[in-house]
Amino acid sequence: MKCFVTGAAGFIGSNLVDRLLADGHQVVGFDNLATGQRRFLEQASAQERFTLVTGDILDEAALVEASRGCDMVFHLAANADVRFGPDHPDRDLKQNTIGTFNVLEAARKNGIGRFAFSSTGSVYGEATVIPTPEDAAFPVQTSLYGASKLAGEGLIAAYCEAFGIRGWIFRFVSILGERYSHGHVYDFCRSLFSDRGKLRILGDGLQKKSYLYVQDCVSAMLTAVEKARGKVNVFNLGTDEYVQVRDSVRIITDELKVSPSLEYTGGARGWIGDNPFILLDCRRIRELGWKPSLTIEESVRRTVRYIQANRWLLESRH
Amino acid sequence: MKCFVTGAAGFIGSNLVDRLLADGHQVVGFDNLATGQRRFLEQASAQERFTLVTGDILDEAALVEASRGCDMVFHLAANADVRFGPDHPDRDLKQNTIGTFNVLEAARKNGIGRFAFSSTGSVYGEATVIPTPEDAAFPVQTSLYGASKLAGEGLIAAYCEAFGIRGWIFRFVSILGERYSHGHVYDFCRSLFSDRGKLRILGDGLQKKSYLYVQDCVSAMLTAVEKARGKVNVFNLGTDEYVQVRDSVRIITDELKVSPSLEYTGGARGWIGDNPFILLDCRRIRELGWKPSLTIEESVRRTVRYIQANRWLLESRH
Repeated sequence: MKCFVTGAAGFIGSNLVDRLLADGHQVVGFDNLATGQRRFLEQASAQERFTLVTGDILDEAALVEASRGCDMVFHLAANADVRFGPDHPDRDLKQNTIGTFNVLEAARKNGIGRFAFSSTGSVYGEATVIPTPEDAAFPVQTSLYGASKLAGEGLIAAYCEAFGIRGWIFRFVSILGERYSHGHVYDFCRSLFSDRGKLRILGDGLQKKSYLYVQDCVSAMLTAVEKARGKVNVFNLGTDEYVQVRDSVRIITDELKVSPSLEYTGGARGWIGDNPFILLDCRRIRELGWKPSLTIEESVRRTVRYIQANRWLLESRH
Repeated sequence: MKCFVTGAAGFIGSNLVDRLLADGHQVVGFDNLATGQRRFLEQASAQERFTLVTGDILDEAALVEASRGCDMVFHLAANADVRFGPDHPDRDLKQNTIGTFNVLEAARKNGIGRFAFSSTGSVYGEATVIPTPEDAAFPVQTSLYGASKLAGEGLIAAYCEAFGIRGWIFRFVSILGERYSHGHVYDFCRSLFSDRGKLRILGDGLQKKSYLYVQDCVSAMLTAVEKARGKVNVFNLGTDEYVQVRDSVRIITDELKVSPSLEYTGGARGWIGDNPFILLDCRRIRELGWKPSLTIEESVRRTVRYIQANRWLLESRH
């Protein structure tokens, strides 16, 4: 099939592009290169079946033009940083909610009948049931990021109902692995590269978080798209384990062979809207035969090694 | 207190304004008069404690200016018609989601710490548990209207978390009563006024719907604002009963003393995204001591009498 991938130059997007190409599909990538990296698409760009369109998801006309003739959309472009919502209240609304609307409109106008979306476990807010299943209680949002993704999910489901589109909504935990370029492992590595003697940690370090390796994430998405045939297919994507932030710090410092003094900023939440415990119930995707290949510890170690080998990434962003 | 009421010239908004004034509050009404009616505010406008600002919720600067100095927001302005979403896919996004964002921004910029919002039972999509409680399973949206209101709810909750605002989210069933100016009773009356001999009904007429009298709706909102003191307070507002569309038709034709032949368009849903069964579990608001004063049948009859006495409304809109 011919796939339209927004956020194609991003961390998850570029890994998805490579996999789609390896599976024999045609791919049109779409990215504004604001946080995406051309270097992530070097391998893809060597293939004739790949085209990159530089454009912004706030430009609906560009989306319509670029996605013409495609059979399926993977909409991954987003503001992916959950922490800084309150500093820029309109950023999540624009890049995530309105952006998703524009991509849906492009799909509708081009008669594209399949639409996959990267949502987030953050839509559960502070869940009362852990591990949290897809049909958990109606959530109360705790972050502008989660709220913007919830809005995107709602738009997709409504489009599926109104326009006969089939949708796949993936609620990710935090993703790790090759091309990882933002988040706590990135921040900790960057800090330790500049000062191996100390590390500042947001919150009390007891926050429990779940992570998933990017190749496992891509496999899960493709498994669901192949096997789940409902009108709106919602899947949690994660591992069945969690680590505490201080465990994650231990793995990172061990991998980097450093022994910094640790300074905790304190409190159960590292930032406004931080969720002290994220663990998703992933039985639904596992029932389709998928399972993760790496543990969280292996994912963290692999991510650290990737960051060590790709110092250019640290310089390209800040 | 000094209240900022968006959609102040609308059906529910104008009834709320009158009640707030009767309770001794100051009120700044904000309405673009696109569907709102100046005549609904005749009584309010006679009072010094009321000001009407004509403006659009898509104009954030106007909202900031108009709401300055207020203590509480009642955000009721919206596209309130659930049926025509697919004909104008961006209307609900703009008027409901982006509009709500703008009103929140105005509240934040003016340091207004209390925010009440008219959401909808449509956010539950086609609920699997009926009567549907506020903490029902994570919903799948079936209408662009519901999706846009869900997005509004998410934004409010995230603003409460991020900016220390206190929120009240009201999930209404359909509201009936004085100043009712759109919906099935309106449509049926209009049709019967022009041809008393026949009536066309969307769907098979077996859809089960719940309704609430507007004065009961306003009382419930004010009860919740007074008594519910959580960070984000979510309430279903409805009666504990439902009627089928054909029952509603019987009440309307009885009240109008007409006996039309009935033509059903067929199917369990009257339009795309129509929900064949809406009944909300309203124990949460009842536990605060509120209860409705009118049954659904009484509400329908009162609404028909209002429409009969206010034919100008039928002419003003179409």
